[in-house]
Amino acid sequence: MSNYLWLVIAAGALGVLYGAIQTAALMKASTGNDRMREIAAAIQEGASAYLRRQYTTIAMVGVVILIAAWLLIGQWAAIGFLIGAVLSGAAGFAGMLISVRANVRTAQAASESLSKGLDLAFRSGAITGMFVAGGALLGVAGYYAFMTLGMGFEGTSRTVIDGLVALGFGASLISIFARLGGGIFTKGADVGGDMVGKVEAGIPEDDPRNAATIADNVGDNVGDCAGMAADLFETYAVTTVATMVLAAIFFRGNPAVDVMMLLPLAICGICIVTSIIGSFFVRLGKKQNIMGALYQGLIVTGLLSAGAVYWVISTLMTGPVQTNGGLMIEPMNLFWSGMVGLVVTAAIVVITEYYTGTNFRPVKSVANASVSGHGTNVIQGLAMSLESTALPALTIIIGIVVTYQLAGLFGIAIATTTMLGVAGMIVALDAFGPVTDNAGGIAEMAGLPPEVRHSTDALDAVGNTTKAVTKGYAIGSAGLGALVLFAAYTEDLKHFTAEAAPGSFFEGVGTVAFDLTNPYVVIGLLFGGLLPFLFGGMSMTAVGRAAESVVAEVRRQFRENPGIMTGEVKPEYGKAVDILTSAAIKEMIVPSLLPVLSPIVLFTVVLFIQPDKANAFAALGAMLMGVIVTGLFVAISMTSGGGAWDNAKKVIEEGFTDKNGVVHGKGSEAHKAAVTGDTVGDPYKDTSGPAVNPMIKITNIVALLLLAVLASGKIG
Amino acid sequence: MSNYLWLVIAAGALGVLYGAIQTAALMKASTGNDRMREIAAAIQEGASAYLRRQYTTIAMVGVVILIAAWLLIGQWAAIGFLIGAVLSGAAGFAGMLISVRANVRTAQAASESLSKGLDLAFRSGAITGMFVAGGALLGVAGYYAFMTLGMGFEGTSRTVIDGLVALGFGASLISIFARLGGGIFTKGADVGGDMVGKVEAGIPEDDPRNAATIADNVGDNVGDCAGMAADLFETYAVTTVATMVLAAIFFRGNPAVDVMMLLPLAICGICIVTSIIGSFFVRLGKKQNIMGALYQGLIVTGLLSAGAVYWVISTLMTGPVQTNGGLMIEPMNLFWSGMVGLVVTAAIVVITEYYTGTNFRPVKSVANASVSGHGTNVIQGLAMSLESTALPALTIIIGIVVTYQLAGLFGIAIATTTMLGVAGMIVALDAFGPVTDNAGGIAEMAGLPPEVRHSTDALDAVGNTTKAVTKGYAIGSAGLGALVLFAAYTEDLKHFTAEAAPGSFFEGVGTVAFDLTNPYVVIGLLFGGLLPFLFGGMSMTAVGRAAESVVAEVRRQFRENPGIMTGEVKPEYGKAVDILTSAAIKEMIVPSLLPVLSPIVLFTVVLFIQPDKANAFAALGAMLMGVIVTGLFVAISMTSGGGAWDNAKKVIEEGFTDKNGVVHGKGSEAHKAAVTGDTVGDPYKDTSGPAVNPMIKITNIVALLLLAVLASGKIG
Repeated sequence: MSNYLWLVIAAGALGVLYGAIQTAALMKASTGNDRMREIAAAIQEGASAYLRRQYTTIAMVGVVILIAAWLLIGQWAAIGFLIGAVLSGAAGFAGMLISVRANVRTAQAASESLSKGLDLAFRSGAITGMFVAGGALLGVAGYYAFMTLGMGFEGTSRTVIDGLVALGFGASLISIFARLGGGIFTKGADVGGDMVGKVEAGIPEDDPRNAATIADNVGDNVGDCAGMAADLFETYAVTTVATMVLAAIFFRGNPAVDVMMLLPLAICGICIVTSIIGSFFVRLGKKQNIMGALYQGLIVTGLLSAGAVYWVISTLMTGPVQTNGGLMIEPMNLFWSGMVGLVVTAAIVVITEYYTGTNFRPVKSVANASVSGHGTNVIQGLAMSLESTALPALTIIIGIVVTYQLAGLFGIAIATTTMLGVAGMIVALDAFGPVTDNAGGIAEMAGLPPEVRHSTDALDAVGNTTKAVTKGYAIGSAGLGALVLFAAYTEDLKHFTAEAAPGSFFEGVGTVAFDLTNPYVVIGLLFGGLLPFLFGGMSMTAVGRAAESVVAEVRRQFRENPGIMTGEVKPEYGKAVDILTSAAIKEMIVPSLLPVLSPIVLFTVVLFIQPDKANAFAALGAMLMGVIVTGLFVAISMTSGGGAWDNAKKVIEEGFTDKNGVVHGKGSEAHKAAVTGDTVGDPYKDTSGPAVNPMIKITNIVALLLLAVLASGKIG
Repeated sequence: MSNYLWLVIAAGALGVLYGAIQTAALMKASTGNDRMREIAAAIQEGASAYLRRQYTTIAMVGVVILIAAWLLIGQWAAIGFLIGAVLSGAAGFAGMLISVRANVRTAQAASESLSKGLDLAFRSGAITGMFVAGGALLGVAGYYAFMTLGMGFEGTSRTVIDGLVALGFGASLISIFARLGGGIFTKGADVGGDMVGKVEAGIPEDDPRNAATIADNVGDNVGDCAGMAADLFETYAVTTVATMVLAAIFFRGNPAVDVMMLLPLAICGICIVTSIIGSFFVRLGKKQNIMGALYQGLIVTGLLSAGAVYWVISTLMTGPVQTNGGLMIEPMNLFWSGMVGLVVTAAIVVITEYYTGTNFRPVKSVANASVSGHGTNVIQGLAMSLESTALPALTIIIGIVVTYQLAGLFGIAIATTTMLGVAGMIVALDAFGPVTDNAGGIAEMAGLPPEVRHSTDALDAVGNTTKAVTKGYAIGSAGLGALVLFAAYTEDLKHFTAEAAPGSFFEGVGTVAFDLTNPYVVIGLLFGGLLPFLFGGMSMTAVGRAAESVVAEVRRQFRENPGIMTGEVKPEYGKAVDILTSAAIKEMIVPSLLPVLSPIVLFTVVLFIQPDKANAFAALGAMLMGVIVTGLFVAISMTSGGGAWDNAKKVIEEGFTDKNGVVHGKGSEAHKAAVTGDTVGDPYKDTSGPAVNPMIKITNIVALLLLAVLASGKIG
């Protein structure tokens, strides 16, 4: 098997190499005129400064946890945690570094042609995508190879499993901070900048007189790019790890166990290759259909992946394999499970496009409601946001049922792994959005001709939909990934309680039943269920406060320096970035720690109020499920709703004809109402909603680590 | 035991009698001048017409279900269903009849003094409260007495249990239609009327030139009064029934079973007496503190109930009782469980007041956010709405743990029963809100002096908080009640599978484990979880559509008849009421049927895709829990958030000083933003949120009935 493992590592390296080569090519593109370079430099500086401070802060939390992991579990867990954290952080940083360089080049390319603009923007997205997927695979497969081939540990040993889970935790921890901190920064700038600029001062978006414009552009890079990259890095790494852990438990002692643990890695490896190939198929046709070009790349990736997964499974697996629970799994059933993963991806893409695309009922209904006023716009947006959860949830339900019928819990895991295999391509689709958004901002501030802005706007509108689509995908896969993690928790627990050594924490715990008739399971569900709501409330409040700090600063600059409004004096952009940096970092701490600490608190409290350890484990397990159940709905409703509001505004800006035949455009009352909806949707879709993803998984992975700590015998 | 049962029936009758006597007294109060009487008559006419049409529509659904119940279960279930449906409908109708008579009298009384206004409005609320509690207790206890004492069935027989559950279902079915239909009507009128009146035409709220004003006032009566009364009737009846069913299962064969089945009825009976006494303590003191006067009545009721419950339990129970599961329950532990119910009630009242009262951080933060604009107002309101779920959920979690430690599942049931025992008093607190709201409208339209409006506004502001408080209570008790129903489902299922006759549907089903590691349990949770979201989305959309129909109609009247605006011609109020009536009734059907049909669909589909009946029962059970988990959070977030928005607007109208010392009042930009938030909050708090209550319970009770149908052997 070791040869195949090296191939997987090579595939991961290929992804990173692709990113490096494309970066070199990207850097050669023209950066336009001096004014553009100046603006881009300000954005680069702000983004780097923010991420440096963000990572310094996270590092402080990280060091504490690193030491705790070392002391409570062992060195291999500590090293795993470090690898996961560093690579996840690096993925975010790389995403930011690429996008702050691609933005100005895209503005320049778009001034030459739409096709060149798309090409450059998409290529920059693909770089981030391959860094994310390749880096995550390199991290997981590399550390696995190091521990097994290098250090000689058994693949199914606790050392290896704990090391991998700790790696996932490292990635999760960084990603929740990055998602939330970046999200608060970007939406604080966006909401605050719009309020004080568009609404109060009556100047257009991205107007250089607004001191918050650079901060707004910085936000796109640190939130939508760096935050998203860290988030998908985490989902990718954690899901692969969870599938490997499940394989180790299900096939422990079976000669096929090495193959089964390799399988998720191999699927991810081959899908990196198919994603790279697919990325070359993104080309603007004669119809200038941007979405069509992107879908072309995605469909090619999907079809190639289907064939590749077939090849991987039929090469690696020589025949049916039996789990320790006695389930016989046919190789072809795992292949079909993988296909379900791809179909779920496709279905979620289509559903999200329906709810957020400009051509369908939901966005049109929000645009129509804007005609009657602010209140009805928000009501209809909320109605759509609630409704939009139903079909994705049904898709996931069907996916669970079908894969479970095919290959039990392992089928669900393989489906999720395959779904995430194509993450490189999906990230590419997403990451080009903020780049074009920035390019538009630079074009505006540098006073490029309106045609340029028109091209970047066209790209940006598609970016809104792909961003929503990626979020739907991220949440769907996070939900399924969390189910795999939950399965790892329950199976791990079964293992520990069955083989409890005398005197160990698990001695005498017996079978833990997660039965809904046990009130401790019910309270676990309710406690888990409240976390996404509380987290959502806290993060929305945080954006509000960050926005207020921006408003106060921009108002101060307008007041103290009247020359700004007349255009004679340049505002202090850096000051706004600094203030927002402090605000975002301060605001991200408490909500981020909520999911980290909650599992530990619940477990300890339940253990304290009653002596039965089984009830404490049951409550903890149910809490994980509670977080998944409400988190899935909260996250989908927020991201889809936000996308619908955003595009309803865009629809009106392009001239919207309502039911009575009246046309509403920019500056109309309907447009003002639509701007309100868009503002509300901003923190919904770019802060709270996406941050629920890592939040769901971090609770699950902390629970897994808690088991490892208790099993290590170092406390308890 | 039969003597005690008669005493319970007497207590129910006492509640109804109190209502009748107070009604006679109320009717003697002055109805003011001719103009007031004319307006009141229009409201009465509209409200009666709406409820007649609503109940006619529901009756069609009801007749189908009645026949189905007769054919599939038996005559006693059919009769139970009929009793529940008719009484729940009657409670709603009575609530409406009282409030449309009390409104004009309150306006007149308020023109004399604030104290008289409060006295009359609260008394009308107390009438509805006692009709609800007394009627529900009479229905449940009366039908139980009829079946056991009259027809000679065993209390624990399937006939009696099915009859009682069917009674609960009848109440639930009416209540979901009434809550939703009334909610769509009232908020369609409110939102539509505000949009076309306040926003477009720039005329004040309740201005007689607005054709939607009468419809708006009708809405208060059919939504906040009739809908709420039917809802609490249902919660009361269903919880009592579920506790009796649990008692029948837990103590079957035990000589104490009759006492234990009587216990919930006796607790409810004595609490009607304490509520009546408490209602006399609502008196405005020298400080003119309206909220203080209401709390005085509530606190007296709570303290008296504590003593009364102690007396009931120590009188009825002679010693510890053992459940069939082997748990020994001490009488005092049940008493303390009851006390937990009262403490949970108090805690939810305090928490809801914190989140919706004008003096605390949440409402102030929303008011502050209004200063920056519409978007930030909505963001902060949503943030508070999400956050507001945490403490009530923690309260419920603690309540579950404590009562379970005290007396197992039956402890939870007794806590919930005691919580609902004081429902008469809680309804009284709530129902006075719409009456004063109407009184204010009548004062405005009849051109009474502004002082009258000032008095009714003061009462109305308190009404906003008590309405939110009651909703918090209704949802908290519904959540706990649903847990009791869920326990009834699982225990019932255990009973059926354990004693399955050869050839029956339950033969060979074996033990159904609701274990979270079973994927069918997971999909059940997810499917259940999506229902409140989908239901919320559908009902919000319905309000939007209903409001649009109102806007179109009022606009048409303004356009076709310019005399309306100048005040020379009276608008056609009746036309607006008619249009809204059709819209609300059309819109309520599909969402109401969602929770009725979902359990049946899920059960059938799971049974179809795989042969194991146990998995189908497990998925169904998990679905019930999923509805409870997300429903609780969705409902609380909507009702508390809506209350916060409403009062943030009120705070600004009274002159709000922001952080920078600037004062914002009526007509300011901050006020406009606050109006937007209020509009958004309207369907949140008065349509979708409260309708989630009966929705949660209806899914649970349909599942219980499904068991009864399958057990009857008539299908399957």
